[in-house]
Formats: sequence, structure tokens, C-alpha cells
Amino acid sequence: MKIVVLKGMLKESHEKKIEDTAEKVGAKVCFVKDEKDIPEDFKDAEVIYGFGINTAKTSKALKWMCVPSAGVDAFVEPGFFANDDCLLSNSSGAYGVTIAEHIIAVTLMMMRKLTYTYEEILNGVWGLPKPQKSLKDCRITVLGTGDIGRTFAKRAKAFEPENIIGVCRSGKSDEESFDRVVKIEDLEEVLKETDLLVMSLPDTPETKGILSEDKIKLLPEGAYIVNVGRGSAIDEIALAKYLENGKLGGAALDVFVNEPLPKESPLWKTKNLLITPHNAGNLTLDYTLNKNVDMFCEDLLNYSNGLLLKYIVDRKKGY
Amino acid sequence: MKIVVLKGMLKESHEKKIEDTAEKVGAKVCFVKDEKDIPEDFKDAEVIYGFGINTAKTSKALKWMCVPSAGVDAFVEPGFFANDDCLLSNSSGAYGVTIAEHIIAVTLMMMRKLTYTYEEILNGVWGLPKPQKSLKDCRITVLGTGDIGRTFAKRAKAFEPENIIGVCRSGKSDEESFDRVVKIEDLEEVLKETDLLVMSLPDTPETKGILSEDKIKLLPEGAYIVNVGRGSAIDEIALAKYLENGKLGGAALDVFVNEPLPKESPLWKTKNLLITPHNAGNLTLDYTLNKNVDMFCEDLLNYSNGLLLKYIVDRKKGY
Repeated sequence: MKIVVLKGMLKESHEKKIEDTAEKVGAKVCFVKDEKDIPEDFKDAEVIYGFGINTAKTSKALKWMCVPSAGVDAFVEPGFFANDDCLLSNSSGAYGVTIAEHIIAVTLMMMRKLTYTYEEILNGVWGLPKPQKSLKDCRITVLGTGDIGRTFAKRAKAFEPENIIGVCRSGKSDEESFDRVVKIEDLEEVLKETDLLVMSLPDTPETKGILSEDKIKLLPEGAYIVNVGRGSAIDEIALAKYLENGKLGGAALDVFVNEPLPKESPLWKTKNLLITPHNAGNLTLDYTLNKNVDMFCEDLLNYSNGLLLKYIVDRKKGY
Repeated sequence: MKIVVLKGMLKESHEKKIEDTAEKVGAKVCFVKDEKDIPEDFKDAEVIYGFGINTAKTSKALKWMCVPSAGVDAFVEPGFFANDDCLLSNSSGAYGVTIAEHIIAVTLMMMRKLTYTYEEILNGVWGLPKPQKSLKDCRITVLGTGDIGRTFAKRAKAFEPENIIGVCRSGKSDEESFDRVVKIEDLEEVLKETDLLVMSLPDTPETKGILSEDKIKLLPEGAYIVNVGRGSAIDEIALAKYLENGKLGGAALDVFVNEPLPKESPLWKTKNLLITPHNAGNLTLDYTLNKNVDMFCEDLLNYSNGLLLKYIVDRKKGY
């Protein structure tokens, strides 16, 4: 078996771990910086770990691509793989910790007006006290109860919110930090009693535009929205409108319909909108990178033993 | 019994609660905006709720002053009260929630480079991924295990740190979120294994300059410091030095030796220093204000029944 690994941010210890696992299953590994560096004798590799987009599109020999991201919307379009039976796995589960910390950070920055304080400090101004809101007694709704939503809920629970409600397709979750879990059909009811809406949804036909203007309108006065899933889930124009008119307390977006956010987008200057450049989760955190590599190695054993991949993506569902 | 209440941020509901409690104990209450508005027949009031500094300094009739802050260093100097037997109580216990959220917020802002990201966004720049650190697996030391330190520790625990060590005079605490509690004498040992040092100490002779240059040097490379207690606890010049030379990962100060921070202070421009204008806890948060009033009313019942005040300050100890 031949495996190509796109090095990305991998450190020596990670390459060692991958090599050791490959040896166990009798596979040969080739580490490259870029797809164009794949040597001739690895062009027919069976497995690729990394965003091997060109390989996926052109190699009929490829049987499994593992991507180091949670989002896979770029790879699930019909016809994307030259080999239509190619397996796709992702690294959903590696990003929960870092993205949950992002959600807590931006939520508190909004609730405590810390961006305004920071702007004052940059200008040498010792500002007046600003109105503070709190996660204590806050009604939190988590739309999308995957690894990110659950890891966030565990942390948020310690802040003594009034409740945390999970919303997902099945209406079920084992995570005990949710006071209640409801189906997506019940979203409208839940939004009416939501002070903080956290969105961690994959991009699928079902989630596109799920937070429409009609739904934004249901949120109570002063509510906050945090989106770390995919930008397509929110009607950005409506969101900007309800931020500008003061209905919403604030929004923190890490993801956008178009990324990078175009220079001409009005979102850059929208009131009470905290923008981050799709950086809630990245591979600079050792924990995330280690977990990512561990997950690939775990599945490499599964793959070579003919077992189902643990982190497989259902390409039809899109996650 | 006559009571003067300085209104500050009190709402109608709070005044009602105070009036109801006063009625129970047969006291008369006078609400004023400012000490200079105290009417003639309340100048000999027995109790004042608020920063009644002039009254404390001049009225021999005053027997109890309750201040709506946790810090009391301004009121414990010998000779401060015209009536040397005057009782002093504070509102330590009302600020834990809001200040704990501040500590989490500024810690994550530093660990995730969110101030740099925000500056880029203000300039219309969609920046590159920045190196992230995490509370997960972090070694946290909490210097000062009062209400603020304990409330922070409870929240921090949910982020799965490697450990949380409390440091206080007695070396003891009931708070289960601390993996270990040690005495101040053991601080040096603990600092060597501290990635995040949270300081929530009152200003007393013992705490002045407790984080000296020698102690800062003991911290591991890349450590973070958050101070929400009193500015006098840190050698600010040494702190700035170890931020500028990159030994420390960052520091977030809400309190300073001189406040407001003087225009000419080099701290304004110190690298990786996140300044907030003594605003970690303020009375704008409903929860904090409600709790503050509840505490005063609770002690008003105690006072009128000749019981010990629950929130009494030991003026000799200074907290």
C-alpha cells in the first residue's frame, strides 16, 4: 500500500507516528509539501492524508482521502473524485476544544464590550465603565450538536447559564450539558427564548440559509449570535440589518458566504459585528494537530484491516 | 435608626427592597445621589450604604458603612473613620461571576491572539492564521482564593486544564475545583510550573509587590499573567521588561499602581500587554447589582438584631 502525506504543519514527531503506523500495516509513506512534488512512483497511491484535491480529481487509484479539517463541503460534490468509490474521512473531533474556546472568547468579548474597550486603549483612552452582560442566567441555544457544539456546551455549563438547548436533526444527544435537545423543526420555538445562539453546522442543502430573516426576527431584543460552522447558514444581509438597527446585541462570525470576506462587503463596518478570518480552529494548537494525526493513524489501522473508517464522511449527507 | 443610601446605579426595585427591609427593622431611609445632598436630619445617620467617604471622615454618629465594592484599601487606613469603632462591610461575593468571566475572556484573547486579529479586522485585513494556545492542559495558578479566585476556578475547570492550584495565606480552601491549595510561602515552587497565573488579591501590606522581578523570572517561558486584584501586587516595571523581551506570553492587567493609568506610562505601549480600565467588575450587570443589594439587606437584618455582620471587613487585616 502506498500513502501520500501532505506535510502541512506536521512536526517530526507526527511524521514518526505516521511512519510507525504505516510500517505496522506494511505500507510505504511519502511525505511531500505540495501535491506537485509527489514522485512518479507515488502517483498511484491508494491513500492520501491532506487536502489532495488534484489527486482526488485525477487519480483513479486513490481509494481513501483523509482531510485534516472538519468541514468537507468542498469534497462532497458529485463527481469530485476521479474514483467515484473513493472513501472520504475528516477530522471532525479534533477541533472541538479550540473552537469551543473561540466561541467562549468572542461571546464574552461581545457581552463585556471588550472590543470597544480595546479600541479606546489603542487610542490611549482610559474609558468609562461599559454595560456588561453575562453567561450567568443566559439562555443558550446550540444549533448543531456535533463535537464542536458538545465541547462548547460542556464549557458553557460551568458559567451557570439558565439553560443550554441543543438543536439537531435527530433531536437527540448523549451530552449531559444540554438541558434539552430538540429537532430542527422546533428551532423557531426555541429561538424566541434564546439570548445566545451558537451555530456549528456543516454546509449541507438542509443548513443553507437556515438562519433566515424570519428566524432572526424571532430572537429576543439584545440576543447574540456566534457562527463557527459555515457562512452559508446565515442570511448575512438580514443579520447586518438587525445589528445596525440595534435589535441584536451582537454577532461574531468566523465564517462567511464568501471567504476571504470581499473588500467591498458592508460587513466590515457593520455595528456590533465581530469578524474573525475563519480562524476559530486551526492546526497551530498542539492538541488539535496531535489529535488530527492520531485520528488518521487510528483509521489507517481500520483501513488496512478492512474495517469501516471511524471518521468516515457520508458523501451524500455531506458530513 | 437612620440610614443613608447613595443611589449610584440602584434601580427602583432595589430601592424598594431596601425600603422594605428598613421598614422591617423600624429604620428610616434617605436615598441621595451625592453625599452633599444628605438633608440636615440625616447628617447623624447610623448607617450609610455607598462610598460615603466624607460622612465616614466627619460623622461621629456613623456606626456602620457598607461599600458596594470588594476592594476596601481606601477605607482601612488607621484614623479614616471619625468614629474609630465604625463597622465596615464590603460586597466581596457580588463580583465573582463578572470578574471570573473577565479573567476567562482576557486569557483567551491573549492565548488566541484575538487582539491582533481585531486590529487587522479594524484595518480591513483578512489575516493569516495565528498560533493558538489553550486552557486545555494548561497549568493554572490562582493567587488569592476568595470569591473571585474560586468562581474563576469553577469555570476554568470545565476547560480541562492540567491542574488548578490555589495559593492563599491559610493554604486551605473548600473549593473542589482546586486540585491543590498551598500557602503563600510555597508560591515560588508553584510559579515554576505555572502557565497561567491569575492574581485576585486584596491590597494589604503582605500582598504589596508580591509578584516581584525574582518571582516573575520563575515563570516558564511563554506564561500568561492576569491581575484583577490590586495593581500594587505586581512590579510593573519588571513585568513590562519580561513582556518586551518575550519571556512572558502576555499579561492582562485590569488594575495598576496608579489609576487611571497616567498618559506617560510606558505600559500603554508594552508588547503583549492587554490593558482594561479597572472594569473587570462593575455594577452594570444586573446579577452583580442585585447581589450587592441583597448582601446589604441581609446585613441590615443582622445589624438591627445585634448580630455580627456577615460581610464585615477586618480593618486591621484589610479585607
